[in-house]
Amino acid sequence: MKIIVDAMGGDNAPLEIIKGTMLAVDEFGIDEAVLLGDENVINSCVKENNITLNNTKVINCTQVIDNCDDAKVVLRGKPDSSMAVGFKLLNDGEGDAFVSAGNTGAITVGATLITKRIKGVKRPAIASVMPSTSKPFVLMDCGANAECKSEYLYQFGLLGSIYMQNIFGVANPTVALANNGTEETKGTPTVKEAYNLMKSAPYNFIGNIEGRQIPFGDADVVVADGFTGNLILKTYEGVAKALMQGIKNAFYKNTLSKLSYLGVRSGINDMKTQFDYKEYGGAVMLGVRKPVIKAHGSADARCFKNAIKQAVMFLQTDLIDKIEKELQSEE
Amino acid sequence: MKIIVDAMGGDNAPLEIIKGTMLAVDEFGIDEAVLLGDENVINSCVKENNITLNNTKVINCTQVIDNCDDAKVVLRGKPDSSMAVGFKLLNDGEGDAFVSAGNTGAITVGATLITKRIKGVKRPAIASVMPSTSKPFVLMDCGANAECKSEYLYQFGLLGSIYMQNIFGVANPTVALANNGTEETKGTPTVKEAYNLMKSAPYNFIGNIEGRQIPFGDADVVVADGFTGNLILKTYEGVAKALMQGIKNAFYKNTLSKLSYLGVRSGINDMKTQFDYKEYGGAVMLGVRKPVIKAHGSADARCFKNAIKQAVMFLQTDLIDKIEKELQSEE
Repeated sequence: MKIIVDAMGGDNAPLEIIKGTMLAVDEFGIDEAVLLGDENVINSCVKENNITLNNTKVINCTQVIDNCDDAKVVLRGKPDSSMAVGFKLLNDGEGDAFVSAGNTGAITVGATLITKRIKGVKRPAIASVMPSTSKPFVLMDCGANAECKSEYLYQFGLLGSIYMQNIFGVANPTVALANNGTEETKGTPTVKEAYNLMKSAPYNFIGNIEGRQIPFGDADVVVADGFTGNLILKTYEGVAKALMQGIKNAFYKNTLSKLSYLGVRSGINDMKTQFDYKEYGGAVMLGVRKPVIKAHGSADARCFKNAIKQAVMFLQTDLIDKIEKELQSEE
Repeated sequence: MKIIVDAMGGDNAPLEIIKGTMLAVDEFGIDEAVLLGDENVINSCVKENNITLNNTKVINCTQVIDNCDDAKVVLRGKPDSSMAVGFKLLNDGEGDAFVSAGNTGAITVGATLITKRIKGVKRPAIASVMPSTSKPFVLMDCGANAECKSEYLYQFGLLGSIYMQNIFGVANPTVALANNGTEETKGTPTVKEAYNLMKSAPYNFIGNIEGRQIPFGDADVVVADGFTGNLILKTYEGVAKALMQGIKNAFYKNTLSKLSYLGVRSGINDMKTQFDYKEYGGAVMLGVRKPVIKAHGSADARCFKNAIKQAVMFLQTDLIDKIEKELQSEE
């Protein structure tokens, strides 16, 4: 098992990316990690922080993609960036999976145009694993396809279902369609069409889901087009962040409130753990021929390790083969 | 000033609706409140709870609309429901505004087809006032129009801007377009078109807003189509509810955590107040010829009072006249 890592992507690169990769190497029995990025930067970061690189090689890349770069031109325009080299190595079989916390647009373009789709997949999608009050669920598409035909939405349900079954061991995952009401008659014409297709799907379609039920884990797979899914995902993260800040401010208010924190810390920590997106590492590009994992942009070492865990699970469960077979049987 | 109230709509009808109406009559100098609903139910509720009805008349309605009713047929099919009678009285000039915590679909249909739009308004929208970490903002459309043309989105920006200026006293309100990225090139073709229109709008357009910035109050007006807006609104409410439950559970965990609550209560209450949607009462139907207010379905007395306050502010600021004049000058 050989994992290709973009050491330059994300807010906390390269330190947390390197640390997370080393945690993953130790924990998941990875044969080799390939760190891509500016060799000098990586080596001095390793030295300064007394990190020992186990089963790891560094490949020097001279260019860097930042979040302002236009995704469409970036991979062609910066062929020696850690991102472009990562996709090339993955394609050439020089690694089994690619993990990056970098520019989402560039990862989407790379996965779609370089890694390419699994036969039978209409559109690959960004699938984000998210926390809820009861259990994790997957939301897809989170931004790869701003516009979706009804048959793409239908297929997202299938891909998400296979994913939750294999990676999270959920038997017969429930699939719901994000909509502005629970009634069958709700939504845009495309969403209504998707509802009709999904009614006779081979997966466990449970109907529409409204925004207010999503955080309670009412469905294992929540299906949306990439425009809507992205807004759901980020509103979800934004509200959680705003409220967590509010809680922090409440405890920081005065000496008494600071003391009070000691008495409730364990409960607050339970809640933080439950709503901790870092637990799942990020999003996966579902529907492409190799595992491509988009770690959270703000990933720390633990979060990045969990993103690599997703890649490992893809490989261990033969997820891509399973998707391919399932799609063949659909035809 | 005469306010028509649907006494039968919402989860806590009629008690909290009646109590909220009486609070509003006392506080806002309303000349007359008209309570619509089953006379026997209203009168016995009043009696049992020792409520004194000031400046209030009750009009008996024999039918009830519930949340399962199909919005499109409901007003015609149940002409003697509190909702249908409310819209009729408003249209006949028997009252200056209509406030209901009932079925959103029925209110939308009633406002659009019975109250009708202000001249120049392309599509009326549901505008929800929402809390953020910094200041309230308005999100529209929250569900009246699942599909929107770019010129509707453009006009929502204008309506929302006039609303925030007059009702919340915000000078030169900032208007942002909900999108799956901040770049001008993001979004569906319709959203991109809307962006282009909004760039040369007479209002203060500040560009795209991502979901994660919405809860921090980065814009005074957030524009979306009704499908997306509804999912943003409800995801927002759902995540806040899920986390508030988490906090409650943390404090209820054991004796020590319960005691700790005393020390942090005031800070937690500050946060609750800041994120309290009840403060604003609900949503308004923006773009119709009379004030139609949709109170939260779960409104308690205070929340319903605040929904009536919205109606009062509409009247006191001549908001509808101002919208009409602004649209004339646009042409």
